[in-house]
Parts: sequence; structure tokens; C-alpha cells
Amino acid sequence: MINYKLKIQYDGTRYKGWQRQKSTDQTIQGKIESILHKQFGRQIEIDGSGRTDAGVHACGQVANFRLHQEEVAQFGADPDRLMDLINEYLPEDIAVVEVRMASERFHSRLNAVEKTYVYRLWNSTTPNVFDRKYVCQIPQPLDVQAMRTAAELLLGTHDFAAFCGNAKMKKSTVRSVYEIRIEEFGSEVRITYRGNGFLQNMVRILTGTLVEIGLGQRQANSIPEILTSKERCNAGGMMPACGLMLVEVKYD
Amino acid sequence: MINYKLKIQYDGTRYKGWQRQKSTDQTIQGKIESILHKQFGRQIEIDGSGRTDAGVHACGQVANFRLHQEEVAQFGADPDRLMDLINEYLPEDIAVVEVRMASERFHSRLNAVEKTYVYRLWNSTTPNVFDRKYVCQIPQPLDVQAMRTAAELLLGTHDFAAFCGNAKMKKSTVRSVYEIRIEEFGSEVRITYRGNGFLQNMVRILTGTLVEIGLGQRQANSIPEILTSKERCNAGGMMPACGLMLVEVKYD
Repeated sequence: MINYKLKIQYDGTRYKGWQRQKSTDQTIQGKIESILHKQFGRQIEIDGSGRTDAGVHACGQVANFRLHQEEVAQFGADPDRLMDLINEYLPEDIAVVEVRMASERFHSRLNAVEKTYVYRLWNSTTPNVFDRKYVCQIPQPLDVQAMRTAAELLLGTHDFAAFCGNAKMKKSTVRSVYEIRIEEFGSEVRITYRGNGFLQNMVRILTGTLVEIGLGQRQANSIPEILTSKERCNAGGMMPACGLMLVEVKYD
Repeated sequence: MINYKLKIQYDGTRYKGWQRQKSTDQTIQGKIESILHKQFGRQIEIDGSGRTDAGVHACGQVANFRLHQEEVAQFGADPDRLMDLINEYLPEDIAVVEVRMASERFHSRLNAVEKTYVYRLWNSTTPNVFDRKYVCQIPQPLDVQAMRTAAELLLGTHDFAAFCGNAKMKKSTVRSVYEIRIEEFGSEVRITYRGNGFLQNMVRILTGTLVEIGLGQRQANSIPEILTSKERCNAGGMMPACGLMLVEVKYD
């Protein structure tokens, strides 16, 4: 079989997240799989690099799926024609922006070695008209320098159990965060997270904690205590999905 | 009376343009005026720098309106409080981003000396998910150099009757175009128009003509003939509203 690797973008506003659900097809995976089903006449499962929550966006989600030789012949084995074929039936808030042949053993989730997420804060009393679906507005002024100090303390390999939204998580909650970059573009405060992987809701809870520090509601130097406590209740609130975007997934 | 100057942003997608209509309040002017009516208990007319068509966006529309001294007292004569007061009732696709006191005689339309519009083309076969409401997609490759050659020939003071969407225009159709800048940002071709004023639909018809030149459907050196003919039928088609944005209005 031929294994295809896809790069996918979506405005997550209208969707219940990446992962297919039984009760609804309002998921990104479900939308793409139903197009493949109609096109090739069988259930074809596509594997994503990871789930994104309801309302979360992606400009660099990666997924893969396998086709038989005779199916590949339908589009002349041309990955660009396969891309056009899928895009033709996708709604305007989902697009496949790259299709490539991958090695037989490539798996978008199991082989991922690094992920980058961006959380966009709109730090102004004035609304953001054009990016309103992609930012979270914080009207009160943020102390960005305090947020940067706190971000430094989150870097490295830690047990991030305190920042995990799944209380019944059975697997390891240890992750490595390589970089947390906080940039200002006019009224926008953009936080870029790069790590080997992130737990459920982890980026939104990290951001909520940094925002509370930026608002002076907690101290930057409280981060080590939160980490060692491993208790979700000690970290900050979870930020809304709309500000979050999966930007890149890296492979070896 | 106190004269207030407003800077307004809107995503025009859902609206029938700037100008209030009798039959609908789905206009930007109508939305703002109805908020002022509720707040101050009387009809207050706001003057915009110019009409924008249905579906056209603005990040720098300017308007003004006058309030009585006793009305001004309601918000402590603080322009920022007036701004917050209006924004509180505006839908999320319209925002007032600046309010200032202006001189008694300031008129946003009559005193405007320069306007800047941007038309955004998405020149790719792959859809643009995140800016889909603010660009017009052209899947075929554009010869941007030919478009730049044509743009040069449009600069200066001309009778732009051939590029006017209103066939019954009684007033002068002479305008001065100071700059037409064509920039590429990845797959985006962004055209910035700066001039002392633009006729109805003029920027969309200029863009349609430049796009036809970029697609090789007409020659760059045909521009002088189109201008001198003063015939609408000799210019290119009118581009969709969604790609157009009123960016800035300048005053002396």
C-alpha cells in the first residue's frame, strides 16, 4: 500500500475537535474520512499527529493514511491531484495544503518528535475585529516581563501532571518543553510553545497560569511549587480554545 | 456642540455596506446610529468618510458626529468612555478603535484628502483557511511583473470614467492616484491603492483589470487606451467585495 502524509489547516471554531466521534461528523478527522470513503468506496482511517480540542485551530496538523495501488491509479499517483480531489469536497474552513508520499512505516502520531503550539492573547480594551476567532481578549494590562520570568521556570523536562486536564491520566505525564517564547505585536501577546509533546489541555492551562501571573494574581516564582505538587488545582485556569493553534509537527 | 471623530473597523461580510438604508439596519452606519439613538434618546447622524460597498471591509474608516454639552456629561467628556460605551453594544464584527474630539467644522467626508485601499489576492490552488473572508482566490498563476507595468500607467490624474461602476455619474470622474503598490507575501498578492479619492467600485474594477493583465488576458500597455475611451466596457471585470479593505483616510 502507499502511505500518504498530509498537512492540514483548519479554523476549529465550528468543530468538535480533530478526533472522529460516533455521534457527530462535526470533527476534522470525520470530515476528511467521509470524503475518502465517498472517493474510494471503503472506510479509510486517517491518523492525526494528535487530537486537538473542540474549537482549537491548526495551520500545521499532520496526518497519514494508506491507499491500495489500484486506488492510487485513480489520480495518476500524483499527490497534488489527490490534494485537489480532497479539497474540492472540504468546507472552506478546512484545507489540505500539502500531500506527500511517505515511507511505508511512517505514522503521524507515533513518529512525531516535536510540536509547536501558539496561543494568541489580544491585550486591549478594544475588540479585535478581523482575528476575533483566533485570539482571546484580555482587557486588563499584562505584565509581560513577569510572564517571561515564569515561562523560564517551565522549561525543561518535568512531570506536568499539575497542568494536565485529564485527571484519570494513566500514562506518564512527564514532558520536555524546549521553548516558551512570548512576543508582543502591537496589542497582541503571542506565546509560542515548543516541546516533545503536550498533555491534554496542557497549553491552555500553561497559558492560563501565565496570564494569572501577568495580571498579578499569582507570582512568577510559584511555578516550581505548582510543578512539584502535581495537583491540577494548584495551576491556573484553562484558557478558551479559540486562542490556540497547532502550528507545526516535526519528524526525524 | 462637541464634534467627535471616530476610527472604525469592520468585517463587512454580513453587511450591506456602510450607508444606512431605509429597509434594513444591516449597514455599519445604521448599527452605530441605532446605538447612539438608544444612548442619547434622539436621532444622531454620523457622517462617514465615504460609502463602502456591501461586503467590503475597513480597518480605518473615519466618521464624525456631534453631541450636545449635556449629552457629553453622560460619559464625563472622556472620549475613551464614549468609545467603550459604543463598543459594548456593537456586534463582534464592528469596533470603534479610536474616538477623539475634533474641531467644530471637521467633516469626515468633505475634509478627506487621501484614501488608502488594499485588495488582497490569494494566488494559489490551495484555499486560504484563516483569511478566507478577506482575500479573493485566483488559482491560476499571475504575472505580477506585467501587473506592475500596468499599474504604473494608471498613476497620476486621469478621468477614470472607464473604471467607474456608476454609469449615471453626474459629477467629475477625474481622480488622482498617487501610488499602486503590488507586493507578494508567500501566495498572497497584495495591491495597495493610494489616491485623493476613488469612484464607485473603482478599486475593484482597477483590480479586475490588473488581474486580467496578470492572467495574460489583456496587455499592460492597453491601459492608456482604456483611460482615454472613458467607456466602462473597455476596462476589466469588477472583483468581488471580500478582497477589499479601506485602510486609511487622511486629513490635513
